[in-house]
Amino acid sequence: MAGSSFGTIFKITTWGESHGAGLGVVVDGCPADIPLQASDIQKFLDRRKPGQTKISTPRKEADEVEILSGIFEGRTTGTPISMLVRNTSQKSNDYSEISSYYRPGHADYTFDAKYGFRDYRGGGRSSGRETVGRVAAGAVASAALKQLGIGILAYAKSIGDIDADMDAFDVSAILETPTCMPDRKASQKAEAYLESCKKDLDSAGGVIECRVTGLPAGIGDPVFEKLDANLSKAIMSVGAIKAIEIGDGCQVCRATGSKNNDAFCIKDGKITKKTNHAGGILGGISDGSDLLLRAYVKPTPSIFSAQETVSQSGEEITVNIKGRHDPIIVPRAVVVVEAMTAVTIFDALLLNMTARMDAVRKFYLPE
Amino acid sequence: MAGSSFGTIFKITTWGESHGAGLGVVVDGCPADIPLQASDIQKFLDRRKPGQTKISTPRKEADEVEILSGIFEGRTTGTPISMLVRNTSQKSNDYSEISSYYRPGHADYTFDAKYGFRDYRGGGRSSGRETVGRVAAGAVASAALKQLGIGILAYAKSIGDIDADMDAFDVSAILETPTCMPDRKASQKAEAYLESCKKDLDSAGGVIECRVTGLPAGIGDPVFEKLDANLSKAIMSVGAIKAIEIGDGCQVCRATGSKNNDAFCIKDGKITKKTNHAGGILGGISDGSDLLLRAYVKPTPSIFSAQETVSQSGEEITVNIKGRHDPIIVPRAVVVVEAMTAVTIFDALLLNMTARMDAVRKFYLPE
Amino acid sequence: MAGSSFGTIFKITTWGESHGAGLGVVVDGCPADIPLQASDIQKFLDRRKPGQTKISTPRKEADEVEILSGIFEGRTTGTPISMLVRNTSQKSNDYSEISSYYRPGHADYTFDAKYGFRDYRGGGRSSGRETVGRVAAGAVASAALKQLGIGILAYAKSIGDIDADMDAFDVSAILETPTCMPDRKASQKAEAYLESCKKDLDSAGGVIECRVTGLPAGIGDPVFEKLDANLSKAIMSVGAIKAIEIGDGCQVCRATGSKNNDAFCIKDGKITKKTNHAGGILGGISDGSDLLLRAYVKPTPSIFSAQETVSQSGEEITVNIKGRHDPIIVPRAVVVVEAMTAVTIFDALLLNMTARMDAVRKFYLPE
Amino acid sequence: MAGSSFGTIFKITTWGESHGAGLGVVVDGCPADIPLQASDIQKFLDRRKPGQTKISTPRKEADEVEILSGIFEGRTTGTPISMLVRNTSQKSNDYSEISSYYRPGHADYTFDAKYGFRDYRGGGRSSGRETVGRVAAGAVASAALKQLGIGILAYAKSIGDIDADMDAFDVSAILETPTCMPDRKASQKAEAYLESCKKDLDSAGGVIECRVTGLPAGIGDPVFEKLDANLSKAIMSVGAIKAIEIGDGCQVCRATGSKNNDAFCIKDGKITKKTNHAGGILGGISDGSDLLLRAYVKPTPSIFSAQETVSQSGEEITVNIKGRHDPIIVPRAVVVVEAMTAVTIFDALLLNMTARMDAVRKFYLPE
Repeated sequence: MAGSSFGTIFKITTWGESHGAGLGVVVDGCPADIPLQASDIQKFLDRRKPGQTKISTPRKEADEVEILSGIFEGRTTGTPISMLVRNTSQKSNDYSEISSYYRPGHADYTFDAKYGFRDYRGGGRSSGRETVGRVAAGAVASAALKQLGIGILAYAKSIGDIDADMDAFDVSAILETPTCMPDRKASQKAEAYLESCKKDLDSAGGVIECRVTGLPAGIGDPVFEKLDANLSKAIMSVGAIKAIEIGDGCQVCRATGSKNNDAFCIKDGKITKKTNHAGGILGGISDGSDLLLRAYVKPTPSIFSAQETVSQSGEEITVNIKGRHDPIIVPRAVVVVEAMTAVTIFDALLLNMTARMDAVRKFYLPE
Repeated sequence: MAGSSFGTIFKITTWGESHGAGLGVVVDGCPADIPLQASDIQKFLDRRKPGQTKISTPRKEADEVEILSGIFEGRTTGTPISMLVRNTSQKSNDYSEISSYYRPGHADYTFDAKYGFRDYRGGGRSSGRETVGRVAAGAVASAALKQLGIGILAYAKSIGDIDADMDAFDVSAILETPTCMPDRKASQKAEAYLESCKKDLDSAGGVIECRVTGLPAGIGDPVFEKLDANLSKAIMSVGAIKAIEIGDGCQVCRATGSKNNDAFCIKDGKITKKTNHAGGILGGISDGSDLLLRAYVKPTPSIFSAQETVSQSGEEITVNIKGRHDPIIVPRAVVVVEAMTAVTIFDALLLNMTARMDAVRKFYLPE
Repeated sequence: MAGSSFGTIFKITTWGESHGAGLGVVVDGCPADIPLQASDIQKFLDRRKPGQTKISTPRKEADEVEILSGIFEGRTTGTPISMLVRNTSQKSNDYSEISSYYRPGHADYTFDAKYGFRDYRGGGRSSGRETVGRVAAGAVASAALKQLGIGILAYAKSIGDIDADMDAFDVSAILETPTCMPDRKASQKAEAYLESCKKDLDSAGGVIECRVTGLPAGIGDPVFEKLDANLSKAIMSVGAIKAIEIGDGCQVCRATGSKNNDAFCIKDGKITKKTNHAGGILGGISDGSDLLLRAYVKPTPSIFSAQETVSQSGEEITVNIKGRHDPIIVPRAVVVVEAMTAVTIFDALLLNMTARMDAVRKFYLPE
Repeated sequence: MAGSSFGTIFKITTWGESHGAGLGVVVDGCPADIPLQASDIQKFLDRRKPGQTKISTPRKEADEVEILSGIFEGRTTGTPISMLVRNTSQKSNDYSEISSYYRPGHADYTFDAKYGFRDYRGGGRSSGRETVGRVAAGAVASAALKQLGIGILAYAKSIGDIDADMDAFDVSAILETPTCMPDRKASQKAEAYLESCKKDLDSAGGVIECRVTGLPAGIGDPVFEKLDANLSKAIMSVGAIKAIEIGDGCQVCRATGSKNNDAFCIKDGKITKKTNHAGGILGGISDGSDLLLRAYVKPTPSIFSAQETVSQSGEEITVNIKGRHDPIIVPRAVVVVEAMTAVTIFDALLLNMTARMDAVRKFYLPE
């Protein structure tokens, strides 16, 4: 089925395999007249580019974006923005062997179960490279959100057992540390931990947190299109993420109502909340507080130690995976979570413009 | 925006407010020739019906369903199944007061921020009664799944600090205890805890777990329509749920790849997995193991102790909420989680029938 | 598949069979704060109600609408508007016979081919009564359009060989003549023609024209969601309509570019067109001129003369259809065409609000 | 809004402007395991390629397709098929002048009205070149339909006043004549007529007919997703088409029921119809007869004689359009109509697989 599109008004459609000709995205429904150039997209793509640090796969990809449509004289035209990133460093022979068996923790088996056969090179469509298109689309959404004074910031909150100290939050560290943690000390500890994982031919997981600031109250919908429901779909659709929470998330199960309810109050003449256990969403609709979500990322399934599995011909075997793999997915997934959040939020903002008849009247009958 | 529909082939559209004429759902895209009668629906609705135990709101609703279309001679016809449940026990005067202020933890403020005004009676569309339509639709999906040998079972896994002992799992307890826990001892402890919450004019949260058995491998889609992504949206769209996890969920962040990967093996001549950290989904597609998800439910926001908030006219006030409210949402939400899971799974099964050209050929050119 | 919904933002979902409990519609995505009451809907429904004239079926239906949700204190709330019309005059025994064979010109055979069985009573879901939900939804859209100064007017342009004289256009005649023609003389001739058809146990077809006034330029989309493409789908989805045209329609095939192009000019300081061969749409987007479309309606397939057909058991037979049937579909379909046009236009207007970033900015950052 | 996608299961998303880097399409939801290579696509693209005859624009484009994803070892993988055609012969300077005024019969004005500015080079997104992506997608759908024994054949039925003689139908003429008429004599007359149009600096319109053979009964849906409704949207979304009809189409308005009804009969042990006024669709669902539709195409709006219009600054002016334009759109649009029909039909076939529970059971529980 057609599972490669996301969004209602601001709709993105991604395509591409790890070892095919390239990857890309079509962004449809983007409003006209947003200043945008390739460098705006490239900045985002560079944040997920492989081969940049020792905790990232040695595969080197330029991941250079070409904008094929939808931009004219440096501005969006309202028509679909098609973006292309060519694969340049495919080493398909690395993967020839894995065509014959199912890697544990990967989608090899489930793709075969569904489609009967698969592009086995580097995971094909289920590769982490699939996120290239998401990140390019997220860059477009982010450019729009910036114009509305809305900021999105994702970072690694923890890696293995090492948590970033939120009291020592250092925004510059996010882009400068190889872990994308907002705390340089924690990052160093995490790097050491990852080093030990690599030595053990093992891999690590972690938590990505994402904060949206400046979002007005009233965004999102009741019932099925709740803002948190759509964010959950957006984030859980990123490979390797196994849990998502909003605000206090899992902790709410042990709280009581008197502790978990956020009291409303007036601050600077505006309605706000004294606390933010809700993470900025009430009844599926933004409440004007910061929106806060957390994604739990599993350890890279490609590890270099021996693993038991089954061959395509149905025999139990022991395998040693080769290839170029990150010992952790978290740092490169940070910008993916940010991108998916941006896409979801911008779509919700556009949808929200039609919620009231007085806004419709004002739009069509200005005075 | 049109946020009241869910699903692609098997599509449900719910409507209705807590204190309007009634609530209902239109189930469109249901295959023809499924035996179905009102009693099949009623059985599901009765599980979420209020007023049945002392830990449930004293509001008594018959919640009797009328099937208005789509069934002929006891079978589905393939055309939309419209179902109606009339509200019979509205006491709007209970709510007249709350029209003037924003209840903490509720959607009053966000609805006003979005729409400019709201049906304030009992939460209107953001009331828990909104789930009546979901449950009726889930009953239809469940009837279809049963024919395919697929079972779905949800239950309360924990309430406050009290966890059900999974080693003492007793399926009959789920329907028989007021908590819907699968462990009678834990349920008794939970009841005592809820009693103390009520005395303190407070409320409690908990965890709902849902298990899908008999699901074949290959269901779901890569990228945005991953089975776990759609389940996350489905479950997070239920009011009061603040986190969702699949399989080991949040725990994956501290695991290593060697521990988290599930080895494939052969059992009874079939490919299966030695462990199930993945919770039955790899790369967004079912892997043939049991599908396992958990939803974290916040404490009922309507508590009877004094709370600080803001009036619609913008003054800080202290309020004492009246009305009829459950001290915990979990037990009545169990069947809602089960229903949303059923709807999502059945839709994915239908979508999956078109994944391979040989299946298409076989359908249209049988021999 | 789920084929009972229409629209993107303003989305309608209809349900119901001719001889079931009733029919209805859920209107989702309607902006909040539109004044609306049951009588606004009833006025539209009364225009398609059977049993009002001698050229309409003698089946008498009150077709009284009940609004079940989405309206509070006389205004739309932004949540789904569910509307119900009960069937009161089903005479299923009229139809018991037709369960055994396929009526020519009807959907009996194709429903069986698709679903394997069908609700044979009165055509079930393929009955003209299916349009009750469309008309109720159209009434909601029309109420909104009225607030924007946009008018929609449909009428019978011709019946059999009798054309309304457009130079004698009399708007009052549309609601007052049994044919819904805007020309009383033509209507009388048409009535005589229909009388002769009835005597011959035969039926007649005709043309419905629909004009939209006050529509601003810029509404609609390029490519697949062209305004004319969506109108075509909307109108062709009404049973018995076999052709749709915009502006000069079919005539364009024999015109030359110099004749068919509409010259732009300035009138009252505004850009307009000297002629309107285009029917108000250029490149799928409204151009500010009146939008003009025409639908071609086939003769009622239920005729009382003997017809050859095939029984469900596969024998060639001759049948005489009984029951209560209009000798012409056109007059009662006029309001259906108007309704579908209203729904399509209002949805396009809502979608259009997000076309430009400056409008988005203005909405969220008013000064 | 996101108007560049079409289809539910088999979903296509096109992008690209006349004078940008290129054009393309993403085909998502295509079943796995259809043999497909670039040459299959190229054959379709070559049929709409400009510069091939004297009645086509002298703009020469190789229109060479590159498949970027979704094909592995010569077969579709079930993942999105991304196809790219680079623009190579853009002469933007031809168009610099038209940036300042609105061409009659074109979308220049309506794009400006909607988006506030436009890519004015060669019509941008509203150019006929937009159909490149449609045709590439249609080639994929056609490859699938061929496997099911379903054939689609479109041709020019008339050009100006010259009608093809259907009794002299010559299928080879469709691909061999510059007009795509199935009648060589009529084609020669049409060529002479077009020659005279060119001399007069004028252009011509015509009719495209499309026939689907081998389509089983039961395809399509009741209500809004009727097969004829979706075909109407598909075809009317092609630029320059102003009317669409199914079967007898417009003629039904003057027929009587006794003439217009098609009697069912038995032929070779199968239910069929004695006549086919319905054009193969009853109640929105295919009836097993050939499906027949007709599209009415307006004359090329770009003509070289002087025309009155308005400049962007709001002055009435007279213009002489330059550039490279076809004197008629029909011949190159034939393959576009065929492609859109193929896409619509294949999507309906996929959707139809879920209509009955016994088919669902058979799929999942084979014996």
